[in-house]
Amino acid sequence: MEKPTLPKGTRDFGPAVMAKRQFILEAIKKVFQKFGFQPLETPAMENLSTLTGKYGDEGDQLLFKILNSGDYLKNVEPDKLKTQDSRLITPYVSEKGLRYDLTVPFARYVVMNRNEIAFPFKRYQVQPVWRADRPQKGRYREFYQCDADVVGTNSLICEAEIILMIKEVMSNLGVRDYAIKINHRSILAGIVEHLGIGEKAADFFVALDKLEKIGKEKVKEELLSKGFRDGTIESIYEIINPGRPIRKIRDDLNFFGYHSEKVAKGVAEIGEILDLLESFGDKVEEHIVFDNSLARGLSYYTGCIFEVKINNVGIGSVSGGGRYDNLTASFGDKENLSGVGFSFGVDRLYDALEELNLFPKEAQLSSKILICHFDNETMKFGLKALAAFRKAGIASEIYPDQTKLKKQLDFANKKLIPFTIVIGSDEMKSGALSFKNMESGEQEKLTVEQIIQKLKT
Amino acid sequence: MEKPTLPKGTRDFGPAVMAKRQFILEAIKKVFQKFGFQPLETPAMENLSTLTGKYGDEGDQLLFKILNSGDYLKNVEPDKLKTQDSRLITPYVSEKGLRYDLTVPFARYVVMNRNEIAFPFKRYQVQPVWRADRPQKGRYREFYQCDADVVGTNSLICEAEIILMIKEVMSNLGVRDYAIKINHRSILAGIVEHLGIGEKAADFFVALDKLEKIGKEKVKEELLSKGFRDGTIESIYEIINPGRPIRKIRDDLNFFGYHSEKVAKGVAEIGEILDLLESFGDKVEEHIVFDNSLARGLSYYTGCIFEVKINNVGIGSVSGGGRYDNLTASFGDKENLSGVGFSFGVDRLYDALEELNLFPKEAQLSSKILICHFDNETMKFGLKALAAFRKAGIASEIYPDQTKLKKQLDFANKKLIPFTIVIGSDEMKSGALSFKNMESGEQEKLTVEQIIQKLKT
Repeated sequence: MEKPTLPKGTRDFGPAVMAKRQFILEAIKKVFQKFGFQPLETPAMENLSTLTGKYGDEGDQLLFKILNSGDYLKNVEPDKLKTQDSRLITPYVSEKGLRYDLTVPFARYVVMNRNEIAFPFKRYQVQPVWRADRPQKGRYREFYQCDADVVGTNSLICEAEIILMIKEVMSNLGVRDYAIKINHRSILAGIVEHLGIGEKAADFFVALDKLEKIGKEKVKEELLSKGFRDGTIESIYEIINPGRPIRKIRDDLNFFGYHSEKVAKGVAEIGEILDLLESFGDKVEEHIVFDNSLARGLSYYTGCIFEVKINNVGIGSVSGGGRYDNLTASFGDKENLSGVGFSFGVDRLYDALEELNLFPKEAQLSSKILICHFDNETMKFGLKALAAFRKAGIASEIYPDQTKLKKQLDFANKKLIPFTIVIGSDEMKSGALSFKNMESGEQEKLTVEQIIQKLKT
Repeated sequence: MEKPTLPKGTRDFGPAVMAKRQFILEAIKKVFQKFGFQPLETPAMENLSTLTGKYGDEGDQLLFKILNSGDYLKNVEPDKLKTQDSRLITPYVSEKGLRYDLTVPFARYVVMNRNEIAFPFKRYQVQPVWRADRPQKGRYREFYQCDADVVGTNSLICEAEIILMIKEVMSNLGVRDYAIKINHRSILAGIVEHLGIGEKAADFFVALDKLEKIGKEKVKEELLSKGFRDGTIESIYEIINPGRPIRKIRDDLNFFGYHSEKVAKGVAEIGEILDLLESFGDKVEEHIVFDNSLARGLSYYTGCIFEVKINNVGIGSVSGGGRYDNLTASFGDKENLSGVGFSFGVDRLYDALEELNLFPKEAQLSSKILICHFDNETMKFGLKALAAFRKAGIASEIYPDQTKLKKQLDFANKKLIPFTIVIGSDEMKSGALSFKNMESGEQEKLTVEQIIQKLKT
């Protein structure tokens, strides 16, 4: 029999990885909840009628489709089947697909539960999504998304709170050196207008989004190849000056403002978000930068957009989001539900924390103590101690078999259990147990109560 | 455009339900971790070669299969396709399926990672599984399983710890009146031997498992229809006496023991588990009952088996498990990996807690405070208060739009936010805010610091 394997692009998360992932997810969820967001979970499977057409042609191709149960070929007309045209046959053999993101299921949920929901609705959702993408480094076919959205309000307080949440999550994760880049779709629209490149806006934004990654020269090459003139590109670089300190945005307002109402509107909204942050007591000079090269794809967002980049690590943005005009329009919904949302990239945060060595030791979900023993009597004595540790809330375990001490201590090391207790007949008599720090090798004789005291402080 | 719907047998979990589900899952995970179990997550999709043949023919039919990506029909021979025989075609159009339980993926993980794992391996896993079952009340096509297993040891300490974990979970959930039923496969084997019904053992156990649900008379009818004789059924009822107090098991040992070594072995092991529990300081008379009518399906378990039933609710068992001989044999693994595992039924626990009204109020993950305001100035004042509450760790929010006070208070009620603060110009001047308990209607004037103090205690 062949050794089993995992499907391409999928992963097991063993105990060590799980502990670190949970450290990240708990840090995020805690902040979401503190800001009044409530959890939602939707099913892995959605009707294909819900998913199809929401992610463009390419997205539709990347949906994992589920074969109908039972005799799924029965009702396909033989003539159709004979074509062997997979695209033509799919609607007859598959009605359901795996969710591709968390936004469409959220929109579906809002449409289906509109009357029960208290708007403005703040929901967060942390679940895996599936994409039949070609797997490559850092790109998986199953991965977690971690979204928070507010729908049903235009208030810029939401944008300000998203920035506060990002700052708090980063702080909880121990990340100090990062930038929250802000831009506004209105500013981009104004620039396009000013440059007179409306018909080439899409090409412009695609190139623009690469500025940080490939540099000015390469972007210039790309723009030239797309038919932009030298003069236009000069003008672009006059306007686009990524990474300038946010405070300058207020000084720059005049320049933009003269040329475009649209730019002025975007700049004013960002300014208002800064004002709100200051009312919250936030230091807006810290971490927040205005980046008018930030585009974040074209179709979806309508207002403020933002993205978070951890500095000095070779990893793309770890968070991003923005305001959109109508979440539920794609379901034919007439009511205008404006919202703003953002998400964290769990895999990228994981890689970044690993690279920066920021996972705390406590992000190991193993027991604190392993109890070792020599025979039936010392084992039973150990059970009593074990019950006391657990009663005190200390995760602990006993080696379940009678075996050599070395094997028991090896087990503690392999499982990263930081402390061991060895119970021999002397220890049983005196009640003073050999308590060993497995990292330092330090050893002392302590009673159960003393050990509890020591580990509690 | 039609209103979107959910696939049959699947559910959204909105905020109120999520909060209660998390209350259950956290209670369980906390205990797992305290007992040294570590988390594992496996992908939703497994290769069909991993899943098929593990759950019997019926199980294979209930697997959700995923259509291969791209032009999946291209390589099916036209002659095969012409048959329209779904079973014949499936292997050509589908390579992956959704996991059906957590045990097979766990076994696959162990086989693939045998060299890295520290045995005995204690893992827990809380993830959804999918079954293309006919949906009905309480039976879903997507539902969570919540498993814990130890593999790589025969030690009965594991069985004792499972019972301790069940007791601690039940206690954390506030469930007081429940029974942990224990039996042993060896005892069942001995009874079958004693009655001389070896060839009818399967029918016997199927009927036996229904004893509590349908009663002695109906079980007798079923046994008669299966060709059992009156005398045999009398003997069965002499032996099978479900619900007898566990302590009696030691007295009964003679009766069983005379007739069968197998029975004696099972009884002795249960006795040893009780001894171990007493070493742990557990009161074995509480909740634990010996039930020799407990069978739990035939094929899988080889040692001690158990099941948990909450008394006085119309809900089946909420937990169950047992010892098995070789977890990884189905993957051709030669090494004998004995293990013991159990799982909690999250949906049933949910229904039971709902029926017993045991969900605590705190199992609402909404904010504690909603800040209400009248204009731009009071709103900005509110942001400052909000920042202070959050800094103190109090989940809180501000109504993001300027609107009528009634609408803001209605929002707090709908979202089950227990406290509101109303900030007017007087409140701004004095710093004494109107703090209202939304349930009692009680209202008082308090400063931000006083409110924090009040909610912290």
